Amino acid sequence: MTRVYNFSAGPAAIPDKVLQRVKDDIPEWAGTGMSVMEVSHRSREFVDLATSAEQNLRKLLAISEDYSVLFLQGGATLQFSMVPLNLAGDSQVADYVQTGSWSKKAIAEALKYCRVNVVADSADRNFTYIPNQDGWQKSTDAAYLHYCANETIAGVEFPFIPDVGDTPLISDMSSTILSRPLDVSRFGVIYAGAQKNIGPAGITLVIVRKDLLGRARAITPSLMNYEVYDKSGSMTNTPPVFAWYVAALVFENLLDQGGLGVIAERNRAKAGKLYDAIDGSNFYSNPVEPAVRSWMNVPFVLANSDLDTKFLDEADAAGLANLKGHRSVGGMRASIYNAMPEAGIDALIEFMREFERTNG
Amino acid sequence: MTRVYNFSAGPAAIPDKVLQRVKDDIPEWAGTGMSVMEVSHRSREFVDLATSAEQNLRKLLAISEDYSVLFLQGGATLQFSMVPLNLAGDSQVADYVQTGSWSKKAIAEALKYCRVNVVADSADRNFTYIPNQDGWQKSTDAAYLHYCANETIAGVEFPFIPDVGDTPLISDMSSTILSRPLDVSRFGVIYAGAQKNIGPAGITLVIVRKDLLGRARAITPSLMNYEVYDKSGSMTNTPPVFAWYVAALVFENLLDQGGLGVIAERNRAKAGKLYDAIDGSNFYSNPVEPAVRSWMNVPFVLANSDLDTKFLDEADAAGLANLKGHRSVGGMRASIYNAMPEAGIDALIEFMREFERTNG
Repeated sequence: MTRVYNFSAGPAAIPDKVLQRVKDDIPEWAGTGMSVMEVSHRSREFVDLATSAEQNLRKLLAISEDYSVLFLQGGATLQFSMVPLNLAGDSQVADYVQTGSWSKKAIAEALKYCRVNVVADSADRNFTYIPNQDGWQKSTDAAYLHYCANETIAGVEFPFIPDVGDTPLISDMSSTILSRPLDVSRFGVIYAGAQKNIGPAGITLVIVRKDLLGRARAITPSLMNYEVYDKSGSMTNTPPVFAWYVAALVFENLLDQGGLGVIAERNRAKAGKLYDAIDGSNFYSNPVEPAVRSWMNVPFVLANSDLDTKFLDEADAAGLANLKGHRSVGGMRASIYNAMPEAGIDALIEFMREFERTNG
Repeated sequence: MTRVYNFSAGPAAIPDKVLQRVKDDIPEWAGTGMSVMEVSHRSREFVDLATSAEQNLRKLLAISEDYSVLFLQGGATLQFSMVPLNLAGDSQVADYVQTGSWSKKAIAEALKYCRVNVVADSADRNFTYIPNQDGWQKSTDAAYLHYCANETIAGVEFPFIPDVGDTPLISDMSSTILSRPLDVSRFGVIYAGAQKNIGPAGITLVIVRKDLLGRARAITPSLMNYEVYDKSGSMTNTPPVFAWYVAALVFENLLDQGGLGVIAERNRAKAGKLYDAIDGSNFYSNPVEPAVRSWMNVPFVLANSDLDTKFLDEADAAGLANLKGHRSVGGMRASIYNAMPEAGIDALIEFMREFERTNG
């Protein structure tokens, strides 16, 4: 068996260099005489790693000292509960933009904890566009406004940061974070599950503006309170040391490549090439408005869905894995996060052309 | 650098054979052409792994079909909130036994969600004993009774399962699970953070009697509701696939060794040897009542605490790592979970004798 090109939406591909380093560090890491899975999170070596991970992430995203950087568990989905528990009173209203399956789930969870005002909704056209900001029906007194910057299922990505005045802006950035530079200063909270551009599933990044700490309601579990993690350096209880370590290697790897400016150009080119191949064919199509197409998740359908299984089987045999689209939209989805090399895109496009030639 | 004997309380040592397998499986696992960190949790290969992990655990602990086996995130500490959120109404009383730092923390968290009745408390003698069951002041209408089967800090372990009649019995078994056979049928819920006897930090085992599912109160976050995990095969959202995989390897490894009967005999012998060495010396001492001494965590102090640093430095140099005791009790602590070989105990005892000879 050799390595395949892995188009999974998450858990997703991890850079080869990072994996090699992980392999080399077993069973002994950093002169400790043990693997990183076995080291105490309070050890000097691990605390150094955590410190450097934070510093490197701050460098990558230019995060100021006004923000706390937290590493938690539970994935982005647990944030759907943590955001209202930390930022809204139960009689308060929170604004939500609904642009896909993930923002929809965030809304369903928030309804347990506060009033929710859906400011805009693109369900009417199957989440293939982003409603114009001018028409958003914002509350005058919202505790915050929440949106999902990249919807992995429909493949829709915000090409802008919403303008919300003084309302804290909260974003689920799971599948777009680190794909390009970002103006963190526009946000109250940014959160992201790791398993796309950060590292293995099991660790969650939260970047929170410090003035928003300390507002959690009384019933908030300690391990869901941002302030508790802030005070303990994300070591309130035993953290997922291995996932944290891999994330640290990924941050280092991104800096080594030149940072997010370089990464963004590469991602723009990769996505552009794939969308061009889709648009230039009569056999494949992508229904998303071009201006809001995701750089990270590229769904597409075949002209004849009877060929889906054949397409997937032959792609698999050609070393192009996990191309099946989400069941709610059908067809295919190529998730092309940072770790997907341009050669993977080229191989996919070549395969798609050949498949169209023989089956189109 | 060579491997050291790692006496950390957690994250703790992982069996050499398991680590070797983890290393071999990078960057390609199970014929997938990718590492296990990168595979979709919905893939056939990963679902097979999860199924076999559960089957092997059921075999190890003889868990009947009356129980659901869940793999969650958040560690045992998140269970301190999940237990009351899932099992008690806010006007109900829950019984708690306080025998150390961890049960104390569980109580502090439960107070957010229900009334708490502390049925017994060993704080008066610094958590070095377990109050006789006959004197426990149980409620007549408790939603459940909670205890911590092994307190890692003071090194106290229940040598019996409390008798609670029909009240659901809940136990934090983080640092004792899989160290010996267990009559699961006596419990309502057993939970355990992985980073002692199961695998890497970042995954949490919950074994819950099925009739206790479906009682979570309305404000319970979806990702803290046992029933939600039960219905989704612990894949409500992206699970920590890597930690789950290592846990699966550990379960397999325990079965290969002959199961928990064999493991228990080994653990009894390992602990016995170390306690004998401590008791047989005038230089080292352990304050815990012999009948409730932990097989897994062996704290001890030196006759002269001025020598603590010297002891730790020289132990480190001798390849005996992480022997520092918890700051709340001072001195030393040797955590000797399943993955600690008898040779590690022998090396520690030899070192202790030599240190006593030159410094005693």
